[in-house]
Amino acid sequence: MIEGLLNRIRGRKPLVHHITNIVTVNDCANITLAIGGLPVMAHAIEEVEEMVAASQALVLNIGTLTREQVDAMIMAGRTANSLGIPVILDPVGAGATAMRTESAKRIMRELRLSVIKGNIAEIGILAGAGGKIRGVEAEGGHGDVGSYKRLAMDNGCIIAASGVTDIITDGKRVAYVDNGHPMMGTITGTGCMLTSVVGCFCGAESDYFDATVAAFASFGLAGELAAAHQEVNGPGSFRAAFFDEIYNLTEEKLKAGKKVKIE
Amino acid sequence: MIEGLLNRIRGRKPLVHHITNIVTVNDCANITLAIGGLPVMAHAIEEVEEMVAASQALVLNIGTLTREQVDAMIMAGRTANSLGIPVILDPVGAGATAMRTESAKRIMRELRLSVIKGNIAEIGILAGAGGKIRGVEAEGGHGDVGSYKRLAMDNGCIIAASGVTDIITDGKRVAYVDNGHPMMGTITGTGCMLTSVVGCFCGAESDYFDATVAAFASFGLAGELAAAHQEVNGPGSFRAAFFDEIYNLTEEKLKAGKKVKIE
Amino acid sequence: MIEGLLNRIRGRKPLVHHITNIVTVNDCANITLAIGGLPVMAHAIEEVEEMVAASQALVLNIGTLTREQVDAMIMAGRTANSLGIPVILDPVGAGATAMRTESAKRIMRELRLSVIKGNIAEIGILAGAGGKIRGVEAEGGHGDVGSYKRLAMDNGCIIAASGVTDIITDGKRVAYVDNGHPMMGTITGTGCMLTSVVGCFCGAESDYFDATVAAFASFGLAGELAAAHQEVNGPGSFRAAFFDEIYNLTEEKLKAGKKVKIE
Repeated sequence: MIEGLLNRIRGRKPLVHHITNIVTVNDCANITLAIGGLPVMAHAIEEVEEMVAASQALVLNIGTLTREQVDAMIMAGRTANSLGIPVILDPVGAGATAMRTESAKRIMRELRLSVIKGNIAEIGILAGAGGKIRGVEAEGGHGDVGSYKRLAMDNGCIIAASGVTDIITDGKRVAYVDNGHPMMGTITGTGCMLTSVVGCFCGAESDYFDATVAAFASFGLAGELAAAHQEVNGPGSFRAAFFDEIYNLTEEKLKAGKKVKIE
Repeated sequence: MIEGLLNRIRGRKPLVHHITNIVTVNDCANITLAIGGLPVMAHAIEEVEEMVAASQALVLNIGTLTREQVDAMIMAGRTANSLGIPVILDPVGAGATAMRTESAKRIMRELRLSVIKGNIAEIGILAGAGGKIRGVEAEGGHGDVGSYKRLAMDNGCIIAASGVTDIITDGKRVAYVDNGHPMMGTITGTGCMLTSVVGCFCGAESDYFDATVAAFASFGLAGELAAAHQEVNGPGSFRAAFFDEIYNLTEEKLKAGKKVKIE
Repeated sequence: MIEGLLNRIRGRKPLVHHITNIVTVNDCANITLAIGGLPVMAHAIEEVEEMVAASQALVLNIGTLTREQVDAMIMAGRTANSLGIPVILDPVGAGATAMRTESAKRIMRELRLSVIKGNIAEIGILAGAGGKIRGVEAEGGHGDVGSYKRLAMDNGCIIAASGVTDIITDGKRVAYVDNGHPMMGTITGTGCMLTSVVGCFCGAESDYFDATVAAFASFGLAGELAAAHQEVNGPGSFRAAFFDEIYNLTEEKLKAGKKVKIE
């Protein structure tokens, strides 16, 4: 049941604490505002525990990780775990370097995660199903539902892999989301922004499977709507239209436009 | 007298050295250019003193502070103080964590500031009047002019609190600025950008009260003008229009559109 | 011969590893995508060697350098050198502080660079011809071809200085590029973005002189085309149009619009 969750975000304005990368941090803050949440970015060891304690969700994104930053993620994550605040991991570039793969696995080992959300290569690598990654971008391949389900069961969390068809599973249920548009790949940060949106939905709904499915459908649908704008003629104009569509998304549009199949 | 200050920025192109956060640093650089200044961002301990010595203003923003970064702020600020270069502090998130509150207070104690500019919660907390903050955003409340005046007198600096009505005081004079538009709250970084614009005005005018009032009126008016654009339909399109309006602002528009009351 | 290089980028999608500044890192990632490359940003000592080994070009930009970051640049650069991967240096702010000048010289000494690309002041300072810089922006002056040629010969690399007329030399050949538009100076990061585009071309063409000339002509032409858009009315709208034009650039447009003179 993803109905009503978007309105709940707008009503509650969940504060989403991000420990994230320097490339897309501004986009993540802006998308959080646009969907109806409240972003805060803080990574200093001295303050992450206090900041996350005031938040409704914690987003951990290793896009430009350092050893010190991963330490801060663990500290913030432990506080979140002890308070029942959902923790969402985006293992950006897992598989591209040993540091990224190992940091993602360390976070998975030391924290109780609510959602792990990556592209098909990142999730495939963490699931032991393999995957090809160039930098931080997946190269082809298709999702392996069986291994995702096992990863979800082993970690007691939602696994969400973005791709042409997005796949989301809690180990039993599997959702396939077909929203989205190729223009979304022409700008950097759509992956990171989607993770922030997952954070917003998880900050407003405790069934993290439903929350994640709603986030993926909302995000992809906004991309479709933006790409259809008459003035969109490339990544610069698409980007502006995309933020507008996230901001203007409604329950009605989502009901009419979502392409979700749950098995 | 805020007339003529905007033209003076365009004529002098003040170099504004920022030590700032990773979320909105790009926006701060772009707004500095758009209003007519020249931005430079540098935070390495080894170079901040040399960089600020070539600048006309120093902006310190603790939005994603670290201990090391605050040390760099103190070093740069001391050089600025010794050279008579204005120092503007944006205590982002003061009140949200002890580290932020204490860092703001340390900067206030160790440096002679020209302007402290924050939202109503941040300024209220530093002024001892209290305030509610979620992450880095003020939650309701209204300004407390008496405590702002005392804070201004105690620190020998301008206190500027942004809100529905902005309040700016040097401890004696009080300016109320009613420019602005709700759309400005739909994008991240408007607070940080306004602080950069204050830096530009202070880099061109040594009466920092006038400079700060001019900055607030200019910034808010550009927001109003941008929100009125026909093509604006959300935060993405608003953002582009807002930068255009800052860039195209003139003394004439400001004279006609400013909503400033000084007591 | 710059013909065909743009298409080659789109065909090969070179992965361009950036170690760059926090101000324009998002713009650099987006421009890399828009021209047809694939960006990756990584600066942790523990992973830069592995990341660059998977890349087709390495871009080093000292816009917000720290000592630790320069160490990471040297490590990544050595791996790139040993594997024959082109290394492009943007010595942002060389001349503005001793740390920047010395870091640029250290990188030039310890690495075999393919291209050094800066503005007229930065290149003039590294070439020993002098130059005036305010923050990270060149102040007037004109290129000194003789000193650029010597710098190119001494370092066995391409020297590229952006200005009203861009000058590119390998020590023998000299290219003058007259593409570009004043609106490009109204947004921050055009210098950094151009360096990323040079990285994309060098990742697709081993004659780095041709690659650099093609990058400058393409970038400047996109700026001209964007500035001519009817909806462009300032830096906000220009920025969107510029990304669109980079994305929509074709061999045909480049052939018709390039203003390149080679001596």
